[in-house]
Amino acid sequence: MALLSFVATEIVIPVVAVIGILFALVQWYLVSRIPVSLSGSFHGEEKKNGSIGNGHDYLLRDHEEGEAVYDASVISKCAEIQEAISIGANSFLLTEYKYLSIFLGAFAIVIFIFLGSVENFSLSPRQCRYQMGQECAPALITAALTSCAFVLGVVTSVLSGYLGMKIATYANARTTLQARKGIGEAFITAFRSGSVMGFLLASNGLLVLYAAINLFKLYYKSEWEGLFEAITGYGLGGSSVALFGRVGGGIYTKAADVGADLVGKVERNIPEDDPRNPAVIADNVGDNVGDIAGMGSDLFGSYAESSCAALVVASISSFGTNHDFSAMCFPLLISSMGIIVCLITTLFATDFSTITNVREIEPSLKKQLIISAVLMTIGTLLVCWLALPPSFHIYAQGSSPKLVYWWQLFFCVDVGLWAGLIIGYTTEYFTSNAYSPVQDVADACKTGAATNVIFGLALGYKSVIIPIFAIATAVYVSYALAVFYGVAVAALGMLSIIATSLTIDAYGPISDNAGGIAEMAGMSHHIRECTDALDAAGNTTAAIGKGFAIGSAALVSLALFGAYVSRASLSSVNLLSAKTFIGVLVGAMLPYWFSALTVKSVGKAGLQMVEEVRRQFNTIPGLMEGQAKPDYATCVKISTDASIKEMIPPGALVMLTPLIVGVLFGVETLAGLLAGALVSGVQIAISASNTGGAWDNAKKYIEAGASVHARGLGPKGSDAHKAAVIGDTVGDPLKDTSGPSLNILIKLMAVESLVFAPFFAAHGGLLFTL
Amino acid sequence: MALLSFVATEIVIPVVAVIGILFALVQWYLVSRIPVSLSGSFHGEEKKNGSIGNGHDYLLRDHEEGEAVYDASVISKCAEIQEAISIGANSFLLTEYKYLSIFLGAFAIVIFIFLGSVENFSLSPRQCRYQMGQECAPALITAALTSCAFVLGVVTSVLSGYLGMKIATYANARTTLQARKGIGEAFITAFRSGSVMGFLLASNGLLVLYAAINLFKLYYKSEWEGLFEAITGYGLGGSSVALFGRVGGGIYTKAADVGADLVGKVERNIPEDDPRNPAVIADNVGDNVGDIAGMGSDLFGSYAESSCAALVVASISSFGTNHDFSAMCFPLLISSMGIIVCLITTLFATDFSTITNVREIEPSLKKQLIISAVLMTIGTLLVCWLALPPSFHIYAQGSSPKLVYWWQLFFCVDVGLWAGLIIGYTTEYFTSNAYSPVQDVADACKTGAATNVIFGLALGYKSVIIPIFAIATAVYVSYALAVFYGVAVAALGMLSIIATSLTIDAYGPISDNAGGIAEMAGMSHHIRECTDALDAAGNTTAAIGKGFAIGSAALVSLALFGAYVSRASLSSVNLLSAKTFIGVLVGAMLPYWFSALTVKSVGKAGLQMVEEVRRQFNTIPGLMEGQAKPDYATCVKISTDASIKEMIPPGALVMLTPLIVGVLFGVETLAGLLAGALVSGVQIAISASNTGGAWDNAKKYIEAGASVHARGLGPKGSDAHKAAVIGDTVGDPLKDTSGPSLNILIKLMAVESLVFAPFFAAHGGLLFTL
Repeated sequence: MALLSFVATEIVIPVVAVIGILFALVQWYLVSRIPVSLSGSFHGEEKKNGSIGNGHDYLLRDHEEGEAVYDASVISKCAEIQEAISIGANSFLLTEYKYLSIFLGAFAIVIFIFLGSVENFSLSPRQCRYQMGQECAPALITAALTSCAFVLGVVTSVLSGYLGMKIATYANARTTLQARKGIGEAFITAFRSGSVMGFLLASNGLLVLYAAINLFKLYYKSEWEGLFEAITGYGLGGSSVALFGRVGGGIYTKAADVGADLVGKVERNIPEDDPRNPAVIADNVGDNVGDIAGMGSDLFGSYAESSCAALVVASISSFGTNHDFSAMCFPLLISSMGIIVCLITTLFATDFSTITNVREIEPSLKKQLIISAVLMTIGTLLVCWLALPPSFHIYAQGSSPKLVYWWQLFFCVDVGLWAGLIIGYTTEYFTSNAYSPVQDVADACKTGAATNVIFGLALGYKSVIIPIFAIATAVYVSYALAVFYGVAVAALGMLSIIATSLTIDAYGPISDNAGGIAEMAGMSHHIRECTDALDAAGNTTAAIGKGFAIGSAALVSLALFGAYVSRASLSSVNLLSAKTFIGVLVGAMLPYWFSALTVKSVGKAGLQMVEEVRRQFNTIPGLMEGQAKPDYATCVKISTDASIKEMIPPGALVMLTPLIVGVLFGVETLAGLLAGALVSGVQIAISASNTGGAWDNAKKYIEAGASVHARGLGPKGSDAHKAAVIGDTVGDPLKDTSGPSLNILIKLMAVESLVFAPFFAAHGGLLFTL
Repeated sequence: MALLSFVATEIVIPVVAVIGILFALVQWYLVSRIPVSLSGSFHGEEKKNGSIGNGHDYLLRDHEEGEAVYDASVISKCAEIQEAISIGANSFLLTEYKYLSIFLGAFAIVIFIFLGSVENFSLSPRQCRYQMGQECAPALITAALTSCAFVLGVVTSVLSGYLGMKIATYANARTTLQARKGIGEAFITAFRSGSVMGFLLASNGLLVLYAAINLFKLYYKSEWEGLFEAITGYGLGGSSVALFGRVGGGIYTKAADVGADLVGKVERNIPEDDPRNPAVIADNVGDNVGDIAGMGSDLFGSYAESSCAALVVASISSFGTNHDFSAMCFPLLISSMGIIVCLITTLFATDFSTITNVREIEPSLKKQLIISAVLMTIGTLLVCWLALPPSFHIYAQGSSPKLVYWWQLFFCVDVGLWAGLIIGYTTEYFTSNAYSPVQDVADACKTGAATNVIFGLALGYKSVIIPIFAIATAVYVSYALAVFYGVAVAALGMLSIIATSLTIDAYGPISDNAGGIAEMAGMSHHIRECTDALDAAGNTTAAIGKGFAIGSAALVSLALFGAYVSRASLSSVNLLSAKTFIGVLVGAMLPYWFSALTVKSVGKAGLQMVEEVRRQFNTIPGLMEGQAKPDYATCVKISTDASIKEMIPPGALVMLTPLIVGVLFGVETLAGLLAGALVSGVQIAISASNTGGAWDNAKKYIEAGASVHARGLGPKGSDAHKAAVIGDTVGDPLKDTSGPSLNILIKLMAVESLVFAPFFAAHGGLLFTL
């Protein structure tokens, strides 16, 4: 048995989760001490002084440059913009969640009916599948509890996204205002706010999962098989919300961005975030609903799923048969250790050092990842030693259980953790303008947009190579040591520092918003430079974060695939069977279908936005001169409506495909489909994200003009810069809509198949039966 | 036994092949009667009258418009240009083949050594693998004969590509000159020339394969196992040349095209193929070495490989054990029937109908495919009935042999044939500007290049869906009926009408060149319109041809995969094994790596070309005014050097990966790798080809201005048109370099693995053994 006793486990997990939540609250308190007072309600204000950024306010720039740093008018302007962004984000999320609740409510019923039908809705106990000769809880109860877990996952995921958005829209103006005091203060504010989200999400996810397990245990007692089958619903719920969050949010943000850029920057030649641009509020709202709420749900989903996959395998391994609760809770203990490690890591950025120079920002953020990875490596060893028995058996589908020693799991966790870091740093190399790949792309702008796009696409393709080798190594090592359980804990390893990576991820859009607010409030050039520096570092770390998200999604999906295969009682997934092969072929096609839908959606919504922005510039007199106020609300409405409408087809594709394939073609074809979607989706996701990131940073490289080479391509408005802007716009839907949503495609189809596996095994494959 | 006797089979195949060759020669004779006389040698001429397209010659336009249609000067000008193109193409191919011969000569030795080492270079007979208890020819002899077959495949492939290029460069000027007589005459000339290539290639491939089998039979007698193992070298040789041909040719043609367009069309605003553009000869040479020679080798490779795959499986099935030679030659008989069918089909275009109107061209070409498919369906039935025994057993790896009835193979062939047609027509729908997808892309040009690129990418992703379902259906049906033999004959079915599809494919670049020559020779607007109409139809049919090539490559690779698996003695390819799974993951990455290399190569070579063209425009006085002659030779040299240099890394990637993976990771990982590359590669190939085709035709749609909608976007030089040109340029490397080369990637890796399978099975997997 493990060194850590049952009681200790039952205490440690919730205590750590609560510490994480308290830590987040402290950070929030520190951020909230920055005053942002409103001199009136937003709507009242609007009527009173005309508008945000009207002609009068432009005077502020010069005024402020002088001395009145604490000018009440600037503060009130920031507060106004903040409220406008907050209202927009709030209303979008509420609309989105309204539609989601209907769809997912229906889906909960589908889960209950499908799983209940496996044993014909009988309430009598069934034969256990793995513990031969014993009786297990009736399938109907497990079906009902799976539905409950699903709803719980949905609620937790919604909460994660919503809280993230709330914090981000709370922090953006505060970051802007702190920028007046210096780069260090602004950085700390953005970083602290990011950490609020990171810790709330990680701790919340852990706490709810822990509570659910303990609640379900009241019914299941020590029947682990049924308990953890029911718990899989939690992962499915989390990922379902993530799908719609990522897709809807992604369409929202990029429709606004494409529309704002194409008319504002390209046609009207006004700067980014200029208050005269009617789509500017929608653009800033988009950062919060796409990059914050969407990504929060996404990573929460990964975390929930990898935990579920590990728990399902653990329950039927020797942990389950020996009723070793501490060992079974190993995934949760790893996550608990992760929270502690990330907490310490955060202090390195907020308390143990200060930023005095813009050049220190990016290294400081990157250091966070290194510190947390190193600490986590030590922490993992501790958890493995304490929570695991010296040796144990892991269930292996299609062969005899595998003997594993406790230190082997340490390698499984760490190979995942470090593979994630390699992926992150590769992503950075290919998307940061400090290195040659992006500089080459910028250079290609000299000969126009076409060569820029060609070089960008080639860069994206190339950037896939190292991450795939890293994932392959992690898969091979972890599988060789502890079969699919190893893969699941490798995924958990990659996600163990989720609090830190989320902190860094959330830091980006907050800084981006802060810059937007500075521009819109007409603050000085100096402040704008400061927020731009914060934002630039955020771009790179966002790329790292996406790398983590994709890498972990690949491992999570594979772990779920393993769990699915065992639950569907497949002893092998043989590519020599035509049933399986056509599954792989069609599965590899799904990411393309999905991308076609999402990219086209952004294009369509973007065109609508372009036309509206053009219309406003053409019909509102005095808009270009800053005399009149644009109609922000219409643009916000276009983005909201488009994204709600357009998220349905890709959402339906992902949610329905496993059901249709499972029912019509059966478990073998579905297994092939999952494998195909996984191996193809991960490539497109990486290449799409990196291509987009590289174009974005190539443009920034030319704009910043920090080197002789860069100045040769610039300045803003040069032909090379215009070509770079075109590349950036093409990349927007790739890097912020289709690319990151593909993570969820592969994870969600896998977890859905896992949940429905007993149904498909019992009633699936209608087409081949006929 | 089959109705067709051994003797009849031995007579029918060579006779049909010879008929095909004679038919091609007749067509050639008919084309050659069009006089293109030179009034002096090219170089002499150059010195005499200054240059192609100099100021003086521009007068021809008006002159010709009058009456002197047979003006000797026009003819001599066309002849000059033709010779320049021919010399360029010739010199490129000779250079390419020189390097190839060194590399492939070395590779032939590698084959001998690797395969010879399987039984330690012993000359004593070995145990047969499939016919238990019998003695088979020594591995060393089979190794030597495999090397011979490889060389034979190389030579045949080189010949196919070279002949195709010769014919195309012979026919282009003749098509231009015939255009003066009317659209019908010009069409017939281009079409006949295409058919010369189609029939020569199909018949030649069949004849050489037939001869090789009969020669090898002299040694092997009735030991089919060894015979057809040795014959697989033929497929490998064919595809190796195809790889370098496609990649090298693709880089050549697109570097020239990108360079010519970016400076000529975009910067200098001169029309396509204007003789003042220094890259114009290189551009026209490119059509011949890329689209003609490259594609010829590619389809020849597919044909050779699918035949080999079918023969290998047949040899170890009941055909082989019963020594039923006619049944074993079923693949060759299907191809023979294909030649007869295509011969009849060709008459429908050349003799049974005439073209009097430009609108009839495209339907006439599309009718060719329909007619040949319908005739082939009947022909297949005949072949199946005559050549196959009423029922027989097909070897199935990992399970007992499968009983198959003769009519079941009929369905296998036809499901492939019709799946090919569906893929072709889907491709047409997505790339022809007669339908809404391309029109939507053209519409997106209104808001600039960025939306054009976004919509084009989405279109490419979407265009994958139906072809994949078609391929999946073909795979499932043919596999269910006759396991991997069914898949191989399905591929053969798709390729059975190769003569017709090659005719149509070759027709395109010939018309393209004809248009170029018309422009360069300063011929009238009327003639140019006529050649443009021919070219436009060629664009659509080229897309159909690419669809066929990709679809057949997918089926061929799967058939080869099946043959590989049986030769490597794998009873299953289990995705639950980590060894296999990492193979699939890395395999799915390879097409990205390969695309990164090829796309980047085109970009780099294109940049060089852009700089050279710019330099010439800036430094040669009077060039823009048509007073001075550009330096065509330097541009030809840039394209030649770049493509030879740049084809090495992608070529090495494809040729070495199976060797490295097989040696280090063994047969299981290699099996996964092949499957991963197949399912991922086919998607990228389709989407890249179609995206590029759609951008090209969106541009043509705006230029042609055939509808109110199109005129609203145009004319040439409008903002929308400029955006369309950018899309077209981005698409060039995708549709003509990386996309079509991916076919070869998946086929070549599969056939190489098949050839080396015994070596990997004996000595592979070093890394896991250590």
